Amino acid sequence: MPLEKVPTSETESYVAAVDIGGTNLRLAIARVTDSEPVRSIVARSQTSTVGTRAADAVVVLIFNGIEALLKQASIPRSSLKAIAAGAPGITNVETGVVIVTSYLLGWRDVPLRSMLEKSFGIPATVDNDVKLAALGESWAGVAGGVSDFVFLAIGTGVGSGVFLNGRPYRGSAWTAGEIGYMLLPGLPADPPERGKPGGLENVLGGDGIKSLWQSQWNQTSTKLPRDLQATEIFDHALLGDALAQKILTQTARTLASAIYNISLVLNCPLFVLGGGVGSHPALRPAAESVLKTWGTRVQPRLVISALGPDAQLFGAIRLAMNLLP
Amino acid sequence: MPLEKVPTSETESYVAAVDIGGTNLRLAIARVTDSEPVRSIVARSQTSTVGTRAADAVVVLIFNGIEALLKQASIPRSSLKAIAAGAPGITNVETGVVIVTSYLLGWRDVPLRSMLEKSFGIPATVDNDVKLAALGESWAGVAGGVSDFVFLAIGTGVGSGVFLNGRPYRGSAWTAGEIGYMLLPGLPADPPERGKPGGLENVLGGDGIKSLWQSQWNQTSTKLPRDLQATEIFDHALLGDALAQKILTQTARTLASAIYNISLVLNCPLFVLGGGVGSHPALRPAAESVLKTWGTRVQPRLVISALGPDAQLFGAIRLAMNLLP
Repeated sequence: MPLEKVPTSETESYVAAVDIGGTNLRLAIARVTDSEPVRSIVARSQTSTVGTRAADAVVVLIFNGIEALLKQASIPRSSLKAIAAGAPGITNVETGVVIVTSYLLGWRDVPLRSMLEKSFGIPATVDNDVKLAALGESWAGVAGGVSDFVFLAIGTGVGSGVFLNGRPYRGSAWTAGEIGYMLLPGLPADPPERGKPGGLENVLGGDGIKSLWQSQWNQTSTKLPRDLQATEIFDHALLGDALAQKILTQTARTLASAIYNISLVLNCPLFVLGGGVGSHPALRPAAESVLKTWGTRVQPRLVISALGPDAQLFGAIRLAMNLLP
Repeated sequence: MPLEKVPTSETESYVAAVDIGGTNLRLAIARVTDSEPVRSIVARSQTSTVGTRAADAVVVLIFNGIEALLKQASIPRSSLKAIAAGAPGITNVETGVVIVTSYLLGWRDVPLRSMLEKSFGIPATVDNDVKLAALGESWAGVAGGVSDFVFLAIGTGVGSGVFLNGRPYRGSAWTAGEIGYMLLPGLPADPPERGKPGGLENVLGGDGIKSLWQSQWNQTSTKLPRDLQATEIFDHALLGDALAQKILTQTARTLASAIYNISLVLNCPLFVLGGGVGSHPALRPAAESVLKTWGTRVQPRLVISALGPDAQLFGAIRLAMNLLP
C-alpha cells in the first residue's frame, strides 16, 4: 500500500458476519474505517447447510466461504480483524457457547466462538440470531434511535429479540425473548414438552398458518389449492380470497395477542416485524387493526423490518465491530 | 446533642415516605445519615382514605399526618429534606403526574409531585406504588443484589414492578408491568373495555379467587362457609380442606402461567410475591410446583416479599433519598 495515501486513521479493516440458519448459511464481509464506521457490505454469499449439521463441518463451511469472499473482493487475509456469528438457538454471549438449537441443527453446548477463533486466528463473538436481528435493525434499520423495542421474528419458528435501554436484553440464562412458547387464549393451557415447538409457534409460525388454512379448506370455501405456503395465503388475502382473509385475520389476532402481552410487561413503543411471515405486507395492518379495536391505553407502533433477511448480518457486523481495537 | 459526637458528616436528615392505597394512607419518616444511609423508620402511621378521594384532600391528610409524626418523634420541620409518594396507578415519574388510578381513587392527571412540593416546601417525587415496592425489595428486602427481577403485587388488584439492570423499568408510557390485563388460556380472548379490571386480575385477584370458591362451593364439597376471603381459602387449603386445595391449585396454575409468560420475555431469575394474596404462604409452593411439572428450561425462583405491606414505603424512602443533596 502506498504509505502516503493511507494515514493511520484511515487504515481499512474488515469484519466478517455469519448468519447460521436452519437451512442456509449467509456470509458477509464489511469494511470498517475509522472515519466512516458504517454499513458497507463489500462481499456476500449464501450456501445451503442441508446435510451439514455438525458444528465443525459448519465452521469449515464458514471458513471456506469467507476465504472465497476475501479473494473475490481482493482483501488481504490480514485485513480481516474480527468475526461475529448468529446461531439459531440459545447462545451464551459471555462464554461463546451455543447452548441449544432447534432440531434442524441439533446443536448442544457448541463452543462456537472458540472454534471460530481457532479457525480464523482473529477475535470472534457469537449471539442468538434473532437478538442480532434486533441489533441490526437498531443500528442500520427501522429502529434507529429507539432505545426500547422488540424485534419479532416470525418464519418457520417464532422468537423475539428484546432491546432495552439502547442494548440487547438477553436475560439471566440467555433466553429472553423466547416467546414461541407463550401461553395465550385458545392455545393449550400447558407448555409443550421440552424440545417440541411452542404453542404460539404452532399457530403463528409458517407451518401453523398452513395447517390452519388446510383445516378450513374445502372446494366451496375457496378456489385456491389446498397446498399453499403461509406467505402465499397472505398474498391471496390481499388479492381478495375470502378464506385467505379469514386465515390472515385469525393469524393477526394471535400476533396482536402476543404483542399485547409483551407490551403489558415492557410497554415498549415499537415492534419490528421480521421473518418471512412477519414481514409480509398483509400481516402488519391486520394486527394493527386488532390492537386498535382493543383500544389499549398504549398503542405500540408496528413496523416491518427494513433489512429483511439481512437484519442478522447487520447485527453481526455491529457486534464484530465491538471486537476491534 | 453534644457537639463532639456529631461531626458535620453525621448531620441527621429525614425523608418522608407515603403510600397512597385505595383504602389506606400509610406514612413513614426515616432517618438518613451520611455515615449510615439506611432503612431506619423512626415514625409511622396509617389512616383510612375511605371518603377522602379528592387529590387535594389526600395531600392535606398527608401533610397533617407527617406533621404529627414529626412532632411525635421530636424532629424539627427543617430536618425533613425530601418526600416521596407511591400512587396506585400509572404515574409519570418525570413530570410527577399521576396519570390514572383505579376507580377507588378515580384520579386523572393529578400533579401530585408539585402539590406535595407546594404543601411541604421541600423536593418531592412520585411513582407507581408497585414499582416502589420492587425498589423497596431491591434495597431492603429479598431482592438485594439481584439486578433483574419482577415484583408481583397480588391483592385486590394484580400488577407488577419490573426491575432490570439494577433499576426500575417503567416503560415508554409508564405502564410497564401492568400485567393484570394479561391474555392467558382459559381467559377471554379479548382485553376488557378500558377502565374495567383485566382478565388476569379477574381470576388471580382476591375477588376472583373468592368468586371461584363460591362458584364451586356446595354443602357436600366442603364444610366451610360460602363467604370466605381469598386468604382464608388459602388458610383452609393448608389445613386440608379439599375444595380450598382445589381453588389454591387453580389459582397457582394461573399465577404460574403469568410468571411463565413474563419469563419468556425477560428470563429474569427471580419473582418476588407480594400483596395480601401473593404473599400467602400457600401460594408460592403451589405455583412453584406447577412450574416444575412444566419442566421449563429456566426455572425462576419464587420468593415471598420480605417487607410485606412496607415494601412500598421502603421504596419511597429509597426514592426520596435520591432527592437529597
